Amino acid sequence: MAKKSAQELAQKQREIGVAEFFARNRHLLGFDNKRKALLTTIKEAVDNSLDACEEAGILPEIIVEVIDMGNDRFHVTVEDNGPGIVKNQIPKIFAKLLYGSKFHSLKMSRGQQGIGISASVMYGQLTTGRPAKITSKTGPKSPAHYYELHINTQKNSPEILKEEVIEWEKEHGTKVEIDLEGSYIGGSQSIDEYIKETAIVNPHVTIIYQPPRGEQRMFVRAVDTLPKEPKEIKPHPYGVELGILIKMLRWTETRTLQSFLTTEFSRVGAGTAKEICENAALLPNTKPKAMSREMAEQLLKGINKTKIMNPPTDCISPIGAAQLEKGLRKEINAEFYTSVTRPPSVYRGNPFIIEAGIAYGGNQPGDKTVRILRFANRVPLIFQQGACAITKSIIETSWKSYGLQQSRGSLPVGPATIVVHIASVWVPFTSESKEAIAHYPEIIKEIKLALQECGRKLSSYVGKKRRVAMEFKKRSFIEKYIPHVGQALQELLGLSKLEEEKIEKSLKETLEKSRGKLELIEFDETKNVDYDENLARLGKEENKEEIANAKGSEED
Amino acid sequence: MAKKSAQELAQKQREIGVAEFFARNRHLLGFDNKRKALLTTIKEAVDNSLDACEEAGILPEIIVEVIDMGNDRFHVTVEDNGPGIVKNQIPKIFAKLLYGSKFHSLKMSRGQQGIGISASVMYGQLTTGRPAKITSKTGPKSPAHYYELHINTQKNSPEILKEEVIEWEKEHGTKVEIDLEGSYIGGSQSIDEYIKETAIVNPHVTIIYQPPRGEQRMFVRAVDTLPKEPKEIKPHPYGVELGILIKMLRWTETRTLQSFLTTEFSRVGAGTAKEICENAALLPNTKPKAMSREMAEQLLKGINKTKIMNPPTDCISPIGAAQLEKGLRKEINAEFYTSVTRPPSVYRGNPFIIEAGIAYGGNQPGDKTVRILRFANRVPLIFQQGACAITKSIIETSWKSYGLQQSRGSLPVGPATIVVHIASVWVPFTSESKEAIAHYPEIIKEIKLALQECGRKLSSYVGKKRRVAMEFKKRSFIEKYIPHVGQALQELLGLSKLEEEKIEKSLKETLEKSRGKLELIEFDETKNVDYDENLARLGKEENKEEIANAKGSEED
Repeated sequence: MAKKSAQELAQKQREIGVAEFFARNRHLLGFDNKRKALLTTIKEAVDNSLDACEEAGILPEIIVEVIDMGNDRFHVTVEDNGPGIVKNQIPKIFAKLLYGSKFHSLKMSRGQQGIGISASVMYGQLTTGRPAKITSKTGPKSPAHYYELHINTQKNSPEILKEEVIEWEKEHGTKVEIDLEGSYIGGSQSIDEYIKETAIVNPHVTIIYQPPRGEQRMFVRAVDTLPKEPKEIKPHPYGVELGILIKMLRWTETRTLQSFLTTEFSRVGAGTAKEICENAALLPNTKPKAMSREMAEQLLKGINKTKIMNPPTDCISPIGAAQLEKGLRKEINAEFYTSVTRPPSVYRGNPFIIEAGIAYGGNQPGDKTVRILRFANRVPLIFQQGACAITKSIIETSWKSYGLQQSRGSLPVGPATIVVHIASVWVPFTSESKEAIAHYPEIIKEIKLALQECGRKLSSYVGKKRRVAMEFKKRSFIEKYIPHVGQALQELLGLSKLEEEKIEKSLKETLEKSRGKLELIEFDETKNVDYDENLARLGKEENKEEIANAKGSEED
Repeated sequence: MAKKSAQELAQKQREIGVAEFFARNRHLLGFDNKRKALLTTIKEAVDNSLDACEEAGILPEIIVEVIDMGNDRFHVTVEDNGPGIVKNQIPKIFAKLLYGSKFHSLKMSRGQQGIGISASVMYGQLTTGRPAKITSKTGPKSPAHYYELHINTQKNSPEILKEEVIEWEKEHGTKVEIDLEGSYIGGSQSIDEYIKETAIVNPHVTIIYQPPRGEQRMFVRAVDTLPKEPKEIKPHPYGVELGILIKMLRWTETRTLQSFLTTEFSRVGAGTAKEICENAALLPNTKPKAMSREMAEQLLKGINKTKIMNPPTDCISPIGAAQLEKGLRKEINAEFYTSVTRPPSVYRGNPFIIEAGIAYGGNQPGDKTVRILRFANRVPLIFQQGACAITKSIIETSWKSYGLQQSRGSLPVGPATIVVHIASVWVPFTSESKEAIAHYPEIIKEIKLALQECGRKLSSYVGKKRRVAMEFKKRSFIEKYIPHVGQALQELLGLSKLEEEKIEKSLKETLEKSRGKLELIEFDETKNVDYDENLARLGKEENKEEIANAKGSEED
């Protein structure tokens, strides 16, 4: 009955080229619609430029130009003042997927996969058939090299269409030009937003941005110092997995387990190494290459039994709570700002640091879900908010107790902006397009802790704000009464001083009453009462009392 | 001042192996936590088994066994009655990433990337160091081959640890055994849920499932016929991109543009081809290989100017509205069910069909966001709901007019389950783990149309339900009055018949009044009024009237 035999099925089995895989799955790379494609291309180019400048210790100055050529065609140019790229590397870096300098080193950087920019080149080629144009110069005395490149998607290798030495006034730097199909729309997910947010968390960067429509914009650097350069580190023993450990034991050049542990891992000194060996019931002079799977498993148990120092922080350069808050103030017109930087933590052996901040009140709408700004290694995350561990963490934090409204399983509602930054030697993204953070439990836990710290500060402010508002309202009541008193006096001119005092007294009593009521509401914080509404209600009651009063006086 | 020169940076540039890339980015493959890892492994194995059986025209019978070995170690076995795998293919299929039979053909199937099962093998190896064990047999007379496999992550190639011919009573089929680190938790994102949902949308499948805890479960097939086998197709001219077109022109074996168009695309006959050439201002006998980028661009314009038939539907085998609804009824105890299958549509040249259904009321909670069931090519999507185009489409549909509550930018709230199935020759997932659908505008549009069709049917039901409820309430009012009438009569025994009639008349009038009021509310559908609340209010009014009445009577 079989329609196809195993033999027939076997004939169709084939290897799949990585480039053709990503060409068909281009949405994995952030090219699932024209608008996103345009932003992704600029993002990848800018991220590379920033990484290169910082690695070379150069204050980045980046020129971004987007020209609308009509019929959804755009010409994108990104030019930096970085160290430039040596000639023979240019084709591979721009026209070969999975090629780069950052994958094999545990070091905090924007790029890490060796996919981004070559993916943009491939997308441009797929949608316009045109090659990417690269110009690069490594120093004042060296020549500028110009390339026109296609990517061979079958072979995942560069096709050089043109290659020449040209004149370039720039001392050093790289210029990337890509034609692609795209669409330009402003707003929350626009190039403009990405560049603005980039400037916020990278105060040492100058960006000159020429949008497809409208005037050129300058984002001039706010500080003249580069962020502390993050150090490259060895993996931390915690979180290293058996498979990886077995591989490390097989490939290490060290001769003894003792030296293996001290050489291949961070935070393992001679003492710790000995302790690990003891806890693993293995001899420190065991030959790593001779260790069996079972021994490796013992070793892993030993590692987890041993108390090992947290990973060093100098492998990560956070934005810093103060800087983050400064960024928020620059971006959002609010009344209250708070921010926090968490101590470093580890997931799967990779150190990471979470930073968070909140801007509350001001001209932010109170009836909408809060605005969220997400950053990873100083790169703004624009798309896929719903898929992000940051969003999940915000949803799972209970904001009611911090003075925001929130219904089960959804984002809080209120006049607030929440910013979260994850800095790590390896940021786990949910896809190659690097738009959202994967849901690692360790990461979600840290984000929540950061949000709770900010939340506590927020709630005390919101509480204070309410009390202040109350006081203000009370005063306004008193003022409200003055004219009434005046009237009353006039009406009563003909009457005796004694009766006049009587009336003023009754008015005061009314005030006392309403005061009392206000006190009660004020402490109803947790219930998230809308105090304005309550005051309105009180206002009415107070009027009733007024009237009652007036009557009373007449009856006298 | 430069810390690192271009030369120093260049030395770090290296190629990245696809296996080591995915080993580090394993969350892309669905291995970002232990619970997910266990489910993903079973999912990949089961999906492959189902595909193989269906391709071979065999009614699938799948045995899934999950054994808890303690300390988060699990032994997973998935055995099918499929066609088996020929010897020399076994190592590559299970221990090489990006190797498979489905990538290069446009055909609806569960697997498509050639990554899934080898990724599971790699994960098992990384977390336990143990090899995957594969047994396969292609027919009663052929021997059963047994392999123990590792994957070499540097080279992305199989390492054969053991290879032998064994006795296997089975006539034909494949058995996969993987040891891995995982964790088993029941509930909405569990293996149990995945298998149950799989059975629902694959009524032709029998699954025997032995969970780590508790009794074996049997999901026996409901139908004895395989779903119509989807045909493999050529790409549809609409949505084909310039870059692809240029590539096709370069590699085609056809000699003329005319034959190129009729051979390489679906839905292009001689007539259409001629028309395309005319619209493109190109001669039908132009040599494809001789065409420039500019000519290809003309051709593309020509294609888009020409009216071409929609892609054939026989390349996709939807579940079918009736079947989908049947599944819902089996799964959810509701009052009202509706479902729809949309006509086929195209994104980027790939045909796809959207099916949707709603189950409303019954014992589903009314105060929570609706439950969502997502399926792609008959595979339940368990994770990443927030990232999915299905979720986005549901959020962007306005449910208030269909009788569900919904606040801006969030999922509707109400006693309902919404199911959406996308069937396509190429489902665009947001990551290799195939957990969520990418946000292609064409796909979101189709999903919304399907949801709206269901929504309209839902709203008319909800409306009817309300009217029925109203009628019921009205009757209950009348009953409520009977005792009052009795009392009134007693009180009035001493009075004249005429007065008694007077009172009964006034009571009736009261009824008419409340009736009238109810009528009004009933038509306030779109405002989503809570009619219970309204009735409560009316109840009060009615009592007032009672009292008024009583008074009236006394006064007489």
